[in-house]
Amino acid sequence: MSSSSEAQLPNRSSEIRKDAVFGRWVVFSPARSRRPSDFKSKAPNPNSNPNPSSCPFCIGRESECAPEIFRVPPQSSDWKIRVIENLYPALRRDVNPPDTGSDHAVGPCQVTGFGFHDVVIETPHHPVTMCDLEPEAVGEVLLVYVERVRQLKALGSVKYVQVFKNHGAAAGASMTHSHSQIMGIPVIPPSVTARLSCMKEIFDLTEKCSVCDLQSDQNLMINGSTHFFAIAPFAASYAFEIWIIPREHSTYFHELDRAKAMDLGGLLKLMLQKLAKQLNDPPFNFVIHTAPFDLSPSCLPYSHWFLQIVPLLGTTAGFELGTGCYINPVFPEDAAKVLREVDC
Amino acid sequence: MSSSSEAQLPNRSSEIRKDAVFGRWVVFSPARSRRPSDFKSKAPNPNSNPNPSSCPFCIGRESECAPEIFRVPPQSSDWKIRVIENLYPALRRDVNPPDTGSDHAVGPCQVTGFGFHDVVIETPHHPVTMCDLEPEAVGEVLLVYVERVRQLKALGSVKYVQVFKNHGAAAGASMTHSHSQIMGIPVIPPSVTARLSCMKEIFDLTEKCSVCDLQSDQNLMINGSTHFFAIAPFAASYAFEIWIIPREHSTYFHELDRAKAMDLGGLLKLMLQKLAKQLNDPPFNFVIHTAPFDLSPSCLPYSHWFLQIVPLLGTTAGFELGTGCYINPVFPEDAAKVLREVDC
Repeated sequence: MSSSSEAQLPNRSSEIRKDAVFGRWVVFSPARSRRPSDFKSKAPNPNSNPNPSSCPFCIGRESECAPEIFRVPPQSSDWKIRVIENLYPALRRDVNPPDTGSDHAVGPCQVTGFGFHDVVIETPHHPVTMCDLEPEAVGEVLLVYVERVRQLKALGSVKYVQVFKNHGAAAGASMTHSHSQIMGIPVIPPSVTARLSCMKEIFDLTEKCSVCDLQSDQNLMINGSTHFFAIAPFAASYAFEIWIIPREHSTYFHELDRAKAMDLGGLLKLMLQKLAKQLNDPPFNFVIHTAPFDLSPSCLPYSHWFLQIVPLLGTTAGFELGTGCYINPVFPEDAAKVLREVDC
Repeated sequence: MSSSSEAQLPNRSSEIRKDAVFGRWVVFSPARSRRPSDFKSKAPNPNSNPNPSSCPFCIGRESECAPEIFRVPPQSSDWKIRVIENLYPALRRDVNPPDTGSDHAVGPCQVTGFGFHDVVIETPHHPVTMCDLEPEAVGEVLLVYVERVRQLKALGSVKYVQVFKNHGAAAGASMTHSHSQIMGIPVIPPSVTARLSCMKEIFDLTEKCSVCDLQSDQNLMINGSTHFFAIAPFAASYAFEIWIIPREHSTYFHELDRAKAMDLGGLLKLMLQKLAKQLNDPPFNFVIHTAPFDLSPSCLPYSHWFLQIVPLLGTTAGFELGTGCYINPVFPEDAAKVLREVDC
């Protein structure tokens, strides 16, 4: 299974790295690992679906779903993408939003479970995965995310929107039909606060955006497109984690325009194809890290959105639970080299 | 499967809670859940071992293990507990420790993978789990943790020690023979820093230790012993998560004395028994949250160690990855009630 180039990878010894975006420490521990090219998913192939005949996300079964928010194209029975409410929402749109500012409370506190929890059905056809879609169709899914985030912003009651995709049961997907989720939440999540603080600290010292700066390390580069680049991050928490980043400084995901969405669609498809080919169709999550809506103008220069893809290859356990540090058996420069060379 | 008391649990609607120790937001979402008493683990029973004949942790196979650090009783071939080096350590004791203070660096940085990664074999006998041990034997395991933490403290090169146990393959245990792990790390982990900051913020406002304060809510109480109490925490990140806490304010786990260790052994065993009985022998992690060695005296009044037990009942996915918020389908007051009533 090893490629000839694999043999040339340097022998590495353990290292602890801190990243410039989340401020997290990660333990790189090659002694626990196989060769980077030997990593394969052992989870059941998430692309196989045992029971497609009863899937409410399939075209023609729209009446079995929770209410629709919009579809593409609008009003068409021959739809390509649908945005619907989640039938089992974690947050409820039908309760009162909490008081503004309650997320600044010190100590234990509780607010109503107000928020939005939507589902994006990415294709009308059950067997099709995001990987199978044409680049433009992936771009259309991204534009649907943008449209829904803009709608949630307009409501004024939501502070942050988390767009994410769970692919495969082991990665948290309860439906096998290709879909993603959008949650509008009334508080600013702790990871977002920590990310902004870390980026601010670096900006204050260097006057540079730490995400813009990620373009410079060619060892970590996987692929690029006109407007985006894909890297294995310097202190990746997970083996074969990928970040796709706008080349031009950009604070908000929801300001993505059509041309850039189409360009990103191609690069996202390519990265998902490479992960599937190299790692044996692993379950994965992707998440879009953007900025809270009410960000002060002084924060704009160091806030830079990006998309993080995490294939599920290992288990997080007691060490991660206790410390918040991750143990990653694959150095990102090795992951980048392996992924650069995958032929799709 | 429902008990008569179960029927009296109130109907709850979604709620978002922030805890007073980690400062985390957690979404409680009963709409996604079954009744609290219906939660059962679906993972393979971690107590069944397919191949005990080849286990190097079993008595008589000591030569197949990495070097021993100490055993209980000392020098006895009829040992009860052994502490050994991890054969595949994530951190290496044979490299130079990083410069002191390098964890304060801003921006991306890297240090050598120096540290200690030890294994505690909790019993000489393969089929015995921690749950099966007598309360005093669990207490002896806790005293072994204490002893090893003290040894690592004395070295001066370690800033924090993480004690943890992974039980079951799904919870990250690569060996089925009952064991726990101790990692001595040269940086202060981000979760520890965040926990101390959160507890400081509350102490500055209230002049109270937020962990001492957890004794007051009887709805969250599961069981108590002379020196400890066990609760379902107010903003538990995970369903049926349990914290076991010293009643008396105590900063450092490694200051635990023999009498208290024996007392804690009984309560820890009881909690593991209750989880096993109620949740169908789930895989679990437990971790000990303590303070860094070099804590300034001004931090002592608000730093209070405790032991966290997390049964593995669900999957964390894209939402948690993006936001650092967790979605918990079981309110802790319901979990506490269910666990209080389990008869062991």
